[in-house]
Amino acid sequence: MKNIITINRQFGSGGREVAKRLADVLQIAYYDKELIRQIADKTNFSPEFIAETSETMNPYPLVFANTFAHTSLSPADTIQIAQTDFIKELAEKEDCIIVGRCANSILADTAFKVFIYSSDMEERIERCYQKVPNDREMPKKKMEKQILAVDKQRGKYHSFSTGQNWADMSNYDLCIDTSKLGVKKAVELIVVGYHLFFNL
Amino acid sequence: MKNIITINRQFGSGGREVAKRLADVLQIAYYDKELIRQIADKTNFSPEFIAETSETMNPYPLVFANTFAHTSLSPADTIQIAQTDFIKELAEKEDCIIVGRCANSILADTAFKVFIYSSDMEERIERCYQKVPNDREMPKKKMEKQILAVDKQRGKYHSFSTGQNWADMSNYDLCIDTSKLGVKKAVELIVVGYHLFFNL
Repeated sequence: MKNIITINRQFGSGGREVAKRLADVLQIAYYDKELIRQIADKTNFSPEFIAETSETMNPYPLVFANTFAHTSLSPADTIQIAQTDFIKELAEKEDCIIVGRCANSILADTAFKVFIYSSDMEERIERCYQKVPNDREMPKKKMEKQILAVDKQRGKYHSFSTGQNWADMSNYDLCIDTSKLGVKKAVELIVVGYHLFFNL
Repeated sequence: MKNIITINRQFGSGGREVAKRLADVLQIAYYDKELIRQIADKTNFSPEFIAETSETMNPYPLVFANTFAHTSLSPADTIQIAQTDFIKELAEKEDCIIVGRCANSILADTAFKVFIYSSDMEERIERCYQKVPNDREMPKKKMEKQILAVDKQRGKYHSFSTGQNWADMSNYDLCIDTSKLGVKKAVELIVVGYHLFFNL
């Protein structure tokens, strides 16, 4: 088993940036869109469709995945089984960072599981505006509603797939608020945590 | 304003040990029983009575504390006002670690707020047995029930006093699971976090 970091994150918390910087600092692979591309290759669904499943669809819970392995499967189930298999293969193959996709549950006993959040809604809104500048035309209140809706969907997908509460700290080894620490310091802290966790 | 670390913790998670070791490593003061003793001095209630308020009583919410400052107060309110004042004074006076007593809410904007938990119930039970060896006669199931009951009361007290959810990560800058990392590594991580948070 390799040294895997899973990153789950609130929308607009800077979690994806944390994961990218972390991969740079630790010089290990980073699976986010690449993970989706690989699942697309295995399932023949489009990357866009796969990306959407974690925010809009409710596949069968992971615990039942094997039961359906040889039966006629819904697209969401096919994706989830391919994703579970691929994440387990990755964990045998190389040290890496995996963003989202229930990896914290799939590798619950072995990975270093990190959750990134931000208690500062203003900052989350600003981060979303910076990412998609055209969204600045959207009023802040509407953007806030959208941010909370994405979190809600992530939580729903996670709960339906794993039976776990996505926002419950007990599903992670380390939870960091980026609102005061910021992204760069969060990365420094995770680097230390990674070395401590895996006795490196 | 000094550099304050607040530590909230699940019962049996090793949180108090984390706080003590942290004080040793950082060579700063540690307020837990000492905090209670000081509040006892100010209010003329016994330390035992004060310790109990956080686990059994529901004083008025902190936000109303000032409203009642010059009226006839219940014991729980008197304690809570003294505690709030004392924690605010401490934060002006010296770098220190404060365990529990809603300090994370009282110093929400300035302190480095840490929550210690453990996702391993077996370990929490064992920690409680080690602390009070006679309790080994108590069946594990009963001890588990007791552990969850203390957490529930801490949550209830915290929620009633501050309006916040005690177990919600968004009320903390850093949340650490001691079940895999252990107490010593949790301390190392908080030391790094402390230096990053306060730019030391």
